[in-house]
Amino acid sequence: MQRNWSPIPFTKVKPVDAFWAPRMEANRTHGLNAVFQQLKDTGRLDAYNLDWTPDSQEPAPHVFWDSDVAKWLEGACYSLMNHPDPSLRSRVEDVVDRILLAQAGDGYLNPHFTIVEPGKRWTNLRDKHELYCAGHLIEAAVAHHQATGDTRFLEGMLRYVNLIDQTFGSEGDQRGGYPGHEEIELALIKLYRHTGVERYFNLARYFIDVRGGSPHYFDLEARKRGEDPEAYWVGTHAYTQSHLPVRQQREVVGHAVRAMYLYAAMADLAYETGEKALIETLQALWDDLTFHKLYLTGGIGPSRANEGFTKWYDLPNRDAYAETCAAIGLVFWSHRMLQLDLNSRYADVMERALYNGMLSGVSLSGDRFFYENPLASAGSRHRQRFFACSCCPPNINRVLPTIGGYVYSQSQDQIAVHLFIQSRAEINLSGGKLILKQETDYPWDGIVCLRCEMEKPMAFVLKIRQPGWCPESRLYLNEVHFPIDPALDRGYFTVKRLWQPGDLLRLQLAMPATQIYAHPQVWSDVGRSAITRGPLVYCIEAVDQIVPISSLRLPRSAVFDSKFEPDVLDGVVMVQAMAKAVDLQAWGEALYQYHPPKLVSVPIRAIPYFAWDNRSPGEMQVWVPETPS
Amino acid sequence: MQRNWSPIPFTKVKPVDAFWAPRMEANRTHGLNAVFQQLKDTGRLDAYNLDWTPDSQEPAPHVFWDSDVAKWLEGACYSLMNHPDPSLRSRVEDVVDRILLAQAGDGYLNPHFTIVEPGKRWTNLRDKHELYCAGHLIEAAVAHHQATGDTRFLEGMLRYVNLIDQTFGSEGDQRGGYPGHEEIELALIKLYRHTGVERYFNLARYFIDVRGGSPHYFDLEARKRGEDPEAYWVGTHAYTQSHLPVRQQREVVGHAVRAMYLYAAMADLAYETGEKALIETLQALWDDLTFHKLYLTGGIGPSRANEGFTKWYDLPNRDAYAETCAAIGLVFWSHRMLQLDLNSRYADVMERALYNGMLSGVSLSGDRFFYENPLASAGSRHRQRFFACSCCPPNINRVLPTIGGYVYSQSQDQIAVHLFIQSRAEINLSGGKLILKQETDYPWDGIVCLRCEMEKPMAFVLKIRQPGWCPESRLYLNEVHFPIDPALDRGYFTVKRLWQPGDLLRLQLAMPATQIYAHPQVWSDVGRSAITRGPLVYCIEAVDQIVPISSLRLPRSAVFDSKFEPDVLDGVVMVQAMAKAVDLQAWGEALYQYHPPKLVSVPIRAIPYFAWDNRSPGEMQVWVPETPS
Repeated sequence: MQRNWSPIPFTKVKPVDAFWAPRMEANRTHGLNAVFQQLKDTGRLDAYNLDWTPDSQEPAPHVFWDSDVAKWLEGACYSLMNHPDPSLRSRVEDVVDRILLAQAGDGYLNPHFTIVEPGKRWTNLRDKHELYCAGHLIEAAVAHHQATGDTRFLEGMLRYVNLIDQTFGSEGDQRGGYPGHEEIELALIKLYRHTGVERYFNLARYFIDVRGGSPHYFDLEARKRGEDPEAYWVGTHAYTQSHLPVRQQREVVGHAVRAMYLYAAMADLAYETGEKALIETLQALWDDLTFHKLYLTGGIGPSRANEGFTKWYDLPNRDAYAETCAAIGLVFWSHRMLQLDLNSRYADVMERALYNGMLSGVSLSGDRFFYENPLASAGSRHRQRFFACSCCPPNINRVLPTIGGYVYSQSQDQIAVHLFIQSRAEINLSGGKLILKQETDYPWDGIVCLRCEMEKPMAFVLKIRQPGWCPESRLYLNEVHFPIDPALDRGYFTVKRLWQPGDLLRLQLAMPATQIYAHPQVWSDVGRSAITRGPLVYCIEAVDQIVPISSLRLPRSAVFDSKFEPDVLDGVVMVQAMAKAVDLQAWGEALYQYHPPKLVSVPIRAIPYFAWDNRSPGEMQVWVPETPS
Repeated sequence: MQRNWSPIPFTKVKPVDAFWAPRMEANRTHGLNAVFQQLKDTGRLDAYNLDWTPDSQEPAPHVFWDSDVAKWLEGACYSLMNHPDPSLRSRVEDVVDRILLAQAGDGYLNPHFTIVEPGKRWTNLRDKHELYCAGHLIEAAVAHHQATGDTRFLEGMLRYVNLIDQTFGSEGDQRGGYPGHEEIELALIKLYRHTGVERYFNLARYFIDVRGGSPHYFDLEARKRGEDPEAYWVGTHAYTQSHLPVRQQREVVGHAVRAMYLYAAMADLAYETGEKALIETLQALWDDLTFHKLYLTGGIGPSRANEGFTKWYDLPNRDAYAETCAAIGLVFWSHRMLQLDLNSRYADVMERALYNGMLSGVSLSGDRFFYENPLASAGSRHRQRFFACSCCPPNINRVLPTIGGYVYSQSQDQIAVHLFIQSRAEINLSGGKLILKQETDYPWDGIVCLRCEMEKPMAFVLKIRQPGWCPESRLYLNEVHFPIDPALDRGYFTVKRLWQPGDLLRLQLAMPATQIYAHPQVWSDVGRSAITRGPLVYCIEAVDQIVPISSLRLPRSAVFDSKFEPDVLDGVVMVQAMAKAVDLQAWGEALYQYHPPKLVSVPIRAIPYFAWDNRSPGEMQVWVPETPS
C-alpha cells in the first residue's frame, strides 16, 4: 500500500482546455446564477430569516434546505478561487450573513428545527438530515475561509461543531447517535485537515465507528419518539448503511449518495490511520460495486424506490435512477481510493463517472440539470432548472470548479497523472518548482503531451495512467521517433529521470470507437452493445437518425468513423457507422408474427452520452440491440 | 355483421377432457374452499353482521369486500350447476343469508357505507366501488337463482336495483352519475336477459351513455365533497375510461379491468341494439388493444401505477402487471365481440387469454393465485393464497366452472366451434336435439374430432374456427382419406350438410413448436423470441435447465422437439431444443468488456407458461434472447 499520495489541489491546476474550461465558465456565468435564483425563489434563503410560522402561506423550511444553500456556497467559493468575481463575492457574503443570523446562541444552526420543529433537535437522526446539513455547512465554511480569508463563517461553524461534539459521544449524557445521511464525517475530516484540530477528526471517527452498532441507535431513537421502529418506511437499516458496523460491511447497499459519502469518509479515515481492516472493507465494497452494480456511465443506484442499490446485475436502462449526486459521490470515493492505493482501476472509474454519469447531469448551458440519468429514454426526459429535492444542481456547482484537483497526485518527488486535461499545474518538488503543462485535445483525441518547465534539471518520477479503456498506448520522450518502454505499475507508466527544462513526454493513446458488452447476467443489456470511445460512453439520439431509435440494430462488427464536428453540441466527436434498421413497413401492423423482422441498412450517428438532451427532444439509447451482421 | 350468434351456455357443454375438467374439479374441491376460508378469515363475511365499530380491533369493511364475496358466490353457484355438492350448497345459502341480513330497509346493501361511512352513500362514485360491488352482487344473485331456483337472493337484489334505478338518472333529483369501476352495466344486462325486465337494460344503457359527459360528474361530485377535482390521485379520468363519452373513445386506456368490463358491457349493449357507432367504437378499441397493448400471453395492463394501460408497445416483461382479472375481463370482452361479429380474431385472443394470461393466475392445485402475471421472473414471484385486494382469486373461482360456455355459439341451425375441448354438448336445432361430442387431446395435440349424435339426419351448418396460430389445417369427413375443402369465412371453416347420425368431422391442426417475434417497437422484446405451440405460450423455468436462465440464448432457427411428459406438472407437452448458453466462466468477473460473451451449446427445455411456479422456485422467462445460430 502506498498511502502517501495526496491530490494536487485545484488551485494549483488550471484547466485551459476546450472541454472542461468552458464548462467551468458556464458554471460560473450560468450555473451558479441559476441555482442562486432558485434558492431565492423557493424560500431556501429566506428560511434563515426564521420568520416562518405555521400560519404562513410559504412552505416550511425543509430538513434538507440548508444543504442546498451550503453546496451552492461551497461551489461559489471554489469558483471565486479560480476566478475573482466581485458580484459573486458579494452574493456569497450576503448568504453567509443570512446563515449566521439564524445561528442560535449555543451555536445550533438549522432553520427547520429552530422554527418548524422547535424542541426536537437531534431526535430523529435517521430521517431528518440534521447532521448532513451541518456537514455541508462545515464544508462551505472551509471553502469560504479558503476563498476569502475571512473567518466569520468558519468561526460560526466551529461553534456549531463544538456543540455537536459536546452532544454526541459515549460519555455521560452524550447521545450515541450518528447521521442517517452521511456527510458530516467527510466535512469533519476536511475541517481537521484545514485547522489541524484533532478533535474534529476524532468526532468524524466516532461517527464512523459507532455506525450500525447494537442495539440500533435509530431504533432506540424511534421508540423515544413513540414510534415503532418496525414501521420504518424503508424497512431496512441497509438504506443508511447502518445494518452492520462499517468494518463488517462487504456489500454496497442502500441509498447510493449516502453510501458514497460514507465510503469516501471511510477512505479518508483509513488514509489518516492506515487501518488495514478498514482498507480491506473498502476494497471489498469497491469490488462489489464495480463488478456488479455500476452502470457503464459511472452512474450508480438503479432504483427510484430507495434512490439506491438493489441486486447484482440489476441495471435497468430506461428506469435507471443513477442520481447525478451519486455519480459525484463515486468521484469523491474513487478519488480517495486513488490516494490510498495508487491503482488505475480507481482512476478509470473516476474518469468514467466524471465524463459520463456526472456530466450528463448538467446541460451544455450549465443551468439545467438531470436528477436521474437514465441510459435510455422514450423522449420524455428533460433537464430542469431545479427540483423539490434539489441536491444535484448545487452539487454540480461545487464539483465543476474543482476539476483541476482530480488531475494529479503527488508523493514527495513523484507525480501521478490521473486525468488528461489540457492544463497548467504548479508543483513544488524538493528540487524546486515545476510547471507541468498538459497539451491535449482529450477526450476527443488520445495524444497527450506533458511539458516540463522549470529553472534547472530536476530528478522526479512521473507516473502516467494507462487508461483501462485503451487498447494500445505508447510513450515518447522529446522528439525521438521510437517509444520508450517504462515499467507499468498498477496501471501507471513509471518514468524516473533527471528531467531537463523543456522535456516533453508524449503519450499516444489509441482511441478507436469500439463496441462494449455488459456481463451476460445484466438482464437489461443482453443482446446489446454500446459504443464507447476513449473515456466517453456514446448514445444514439433521435435527432441524429433517419429512422426511429427503437428500430435501429448495431451489427456485431460495425465499422466506426469518428469525426470532430465543431458545430454539433459545442463541438464533439460524432461516431458514425452503417447499421441496420427494422423494416417497419414490411412488418406491418401485427403485434406478433411467426417470423423475425426484416432489416435494411441505414447509417447510425452517435454522440457522447453526456451531451444528450441538448437539442430537439426525442428518444435516446446507450445500449443498442445487436444484429449479427 | 352477423349479430344473431349466442353462446351455448356452460350448462349444455360439459368438458370431459384431461385439461380443463381437472382444473374445474380442483376449483370445486380446493379453489372455492380456499377462497371461502380467506373470506371468513379476513372478516369479509363478518362484515355483513354490521357490528364493526370505529373502536374495533378488526379492519373496517372495505369498499370492495362485497365484490370478493359476490364473485365467490357466483363461482360457487356455477360450480353447483355443474356438480351438485350439498356442503357447498349449504355454504352458499349461509352466505346469502348473511348478505341479506345486511340489507337496509330501502334495499341498499353495502356494509362499508352502512357502518363505516354512514350518510355518505353515492357521494364518491369515482373511488369507492359502490356500484361495482352492487354489480357483482347482482351477478351472484342471478347465478344463485339459476343454480338453485330459490328467489330470495334475487328478490333482495331486485330491491337494491330498484333503489339504484330510482337514485340514478336524468330526471328530477336523480343523480347523473355512473360507476368509477364499471361492472354494474354487465350485471344489469345479465339481469335483463334473466328476467326480461327492460328497466334493467335501460339503466345499464344509461350508465354507459352518460359516462364521460361534461361537466364531468366525478369533478362535480368531488367539489361537493369539498375536494379539489384536480387533486384526483391518478390525475386523469382516462383511468376510469370517463375522459370522453364512450362513443368517442378510440384508445384503450386506464385501469385494465375497468376497461374490459366497460367494453364488454358496450358489446352487450351493441348486441341488443345493433347500434353501428358503438360497434365501430368497439372495433377501434379492439384494434388498439390487439395491435399495440396486448401481451403474447393475453395479459393486459403493463403498469402497476394505474393497474392498467400505458403507451403503444410498452410491454415490459419482468415488471408486467398483467392482472389476472384483466385477462379474465379480456375473455369476457372477446367472447362478446365474437357473438357480435363471428370472426376468428376475437376467438384467437380469447383462447390465448384463457390458456395463458388467465390460467397462469391459478396454481395446478387450484388454491394459489397470481394477481400479477409477469412474463419473466428473477425467482421471487410466487402464487399466494389471497391478497389484501383480492379480486383475482374469486374471479378465477367464477370463470373456471363456465369454461364450457366459451366453446360454441349458435345461430339458428348454425353452430360455431370456437374452442377445442374434449366435451359433450347438447344443442337444440330446428330438426331436433344434437349431441355434439368433441374428442381431442387439445391443447397438447391438434387433432379434433367432432362427432354428431342425433336420432335422424339433420341439415345444419358447422363453422369451425381455424386458429390464427395454425400454419396448416385439414378437415376430413368420416373415414375418407382426402380432406374436404370448405369455404373459410372470417376464420371459420363452414361445412353445410345434411348430417347423418354418427357423422365424424376430423380437424387436423398442425401444431409445431415455433418461435414467435414481437413488433420491433416492443422495446422489451427486441432481439428476443418466444416459443409457442398451438394456443400455448411457453416459458423456460430454472428447474428444467442445466445453466442459469439468464445465460440462455435461443438460436434463430432452433429445432424443437415436443413430447408429452405425463409426470411433469400433471402432464404437459414439454418443448426441447439445442440452444446456446453464455460461457460465464470464460467471461470472468468484469462487468463490461470490449468483446461479446462466448457461447456454448446446451439443451433448453420449455414448459407452458400457465404452469410456471408450480415446482421449485426460480427464474422464468418467456422472451428468450436470440442468437443467430
